[in-house]
Amino acid sequence: MEKIRIAIVGYGNIGKAVLEAVQSSPDMETAGIVRRSSSVRNTPKELNGIKIVTDIASLNKVDVAILCTPTRCVPSVADSILKRGINTVDSFDIHTRIWDLRRDLNLVALKNGAVAILSAGWDPGSDSIVRAMLEAMAPQGITYTNFGPGMSMGHTVAVKAIEGVRKALSMTIPQGTNIHRRMVYVELEKGYDYDKVADSIKADPYFKHDETHIIAVDNVDNLLDMGHGVNMVRKGVSGVTQNQLFEFNMKINNPALTAQIMVACARASMRTKPGAYTMIEIPVIHMLYGNEEDLIRRLV
Amino acid sequence: MEKIRIAIVGYGNIGKAVLEAVQSSPDMETAGIVRRSSSVRNTPKELNGIKIVTDIASLNKVDVAILCTPTRCVPSVADSILKRGINTVDSFDIHTRIWDLRRDLNLVALKNGAVAILSAGWDPGSDSIVRAMLEAMAPQGITYTNFGPGMSMGHTVAVKAIEGVRKALSMTIPQGTNIHRRMVYVELEKGYDYDKVADSIKADPYFKHDETHIIAVDNVDNLLDMGHGVNMVRKGVSGVTQNQLFEFNMKINNPALTAQIMVACARASMRTKPGAYTMIEIPVIHMLYGNEEDLIRRLV
Repeated sequence: MEKIRIAIVGYGNIGKAVLEAVQSSPDMETAGIVRRSSSVRNTPKELNGIKIVTDIASLNKVDVAILCTPTRCVPSVADSILKRGINTVDSFDIHTRIWDLRRDLNLVALKNGAVAILSAGWDPGSDSIVRAMLEAMAPQGITYTNFGPGMSMGHTVAVKAIEGVRKALSMTIPQGTNIHRRMVYVELEKGYDYDKVADSIKADPYFKHDETHIIAVDNVDNLLDMGHGVNMVRKGVSGVTQNQLFEFNMKINNPALTAQIMVACARASMRTKPGAYTMIEIPVIHMLYGNEEDLIRRLV
Repeated sequence: MEKIRIAIVGYGNIGKAVLEAVQSSPDMETAGIVRRSSSVRNTPKELNGIKIVTDIASLNKVDVAILCTPTRCVPSVADSILKRGINTVDSFDIHTRIWDLRRDLNLVALKNGAVAILSAGWDPGSDSIVRAMLEAMAPQGITYTNFGPGMSMGHTVAVKAIEGVRKALSMTIPQGTNIHRRMVYVELEKGYDYDKVADSIKADPYFKHDETHIIAVDNVDNLLDMGHGVNMVRKGVSGVTQNQLFEFNMKINNPALTAQIMVACARASMRTKPGAYTMIEIPVIHMLYGNEEDLIRRLV
């Protein structure tokens, strides 16, 4: 069997987890890692024996590039890689811009005979599949997606930008019906007053609409944990029958799950016609390793 | 907009719920009902004004036939309708025979330029999508699908076949890790001994491996309720990260949900190339009413 050759573009938490997931997949192999610097000094030891380059063109025969760069870099990186006829998978997570990105990447992908699967994480991603499926099962009703407990990257970055904050962690605590409490842990800079900093955080657009608690701590690093969670609930109507109740829960390691889903979508990209797709546009079976008959016999 | 024209084949609990779901779908209309008898005497009043025939060939311009016949009739009914170039959707639920049916219907569908979507209920069906998706998210691990509380048709029929039983109801009670308790309610025939009948039920292949309780009641009909439930649990590994935890729960009206899913798959069949498919082979977005851009903006 010819293995699917994966390039990992970017090597932070997600990149490292993607490498682990690729190495755990019997049908895949790592073509190499694309980093800003290929200097040997910065190379973690799990990359021994793996080709590290600064330009994907230097890698041999890449089928799929899994983009583990910051989300804001995804549009330009995906565009440049699709132009080489290489499939891309990203976990672009700015919900309001997914449609536009899909439209742009679709044109590039079609033109170059490649496949882009975008927003392939857990939300957007697998949660999107559940949301879509629940709407097919009960078209009328409300779905609530409640996140956490877990770290919010966006909120943490927003806190760090506030004067007087040395280090920060913003935890998202689900309160049901899409309402979230923010628990913000901060290390203060010397000479700054807790009350003033706390007021600035509470006035920030990221926090001003949510119940927010600010806790000063000596060491934020000791609080970090990459676990996260989702609780999705739908109450709806099937036909004319009310009160159909659905719930999806998970408690997961965040980068590990994102990475595993990206790897599953890399596999799916090899079974898909050129173009750009979100996960709700891909048959789930294409994400799985194994032959069609075995999968259908076992899972349907 | 041209509406998708649906024929409902069979008119029991599921057929009635399919009619309700079709009538609730803005993009569909009922072409007619196919019944064994079109006699006016047996016609329930909600069918006033709807064409009732004994042969689907008597209906005008059918796009999709939704098969609401007993599961054992599905293979032959689907075969004969696909041969007319009409798409079919069924909720065939004999798990061990789904692959064979798919293979057979695939040939007929391809030959006649039609689409068959099979096993389009909740299990097999939407549960299959969740099972497949969870395996993509954590490829190593165990999934348990726990059913109930709800009536088991198969077990109820098995009890009714036992001598001395006039009426029966077998409820499935989930005990976790795929273990189910059977709560069997029976009306005894006059002159039969409870202990003897109970022993026969417990010795039946349907019951002998499960914890089974038999309760004699005066009136089984008073206990009937079409609610059902699922609790699906997976604990698995993403990449090398252990203990990823997932759970899917629902509490639903059984025929209403089955019918709604069949209707969603009827829609999907109009967006699918000829052939036979299970639900894990269909992109979820195809099951939904609405345009692609709106759906992606709202659900992804």
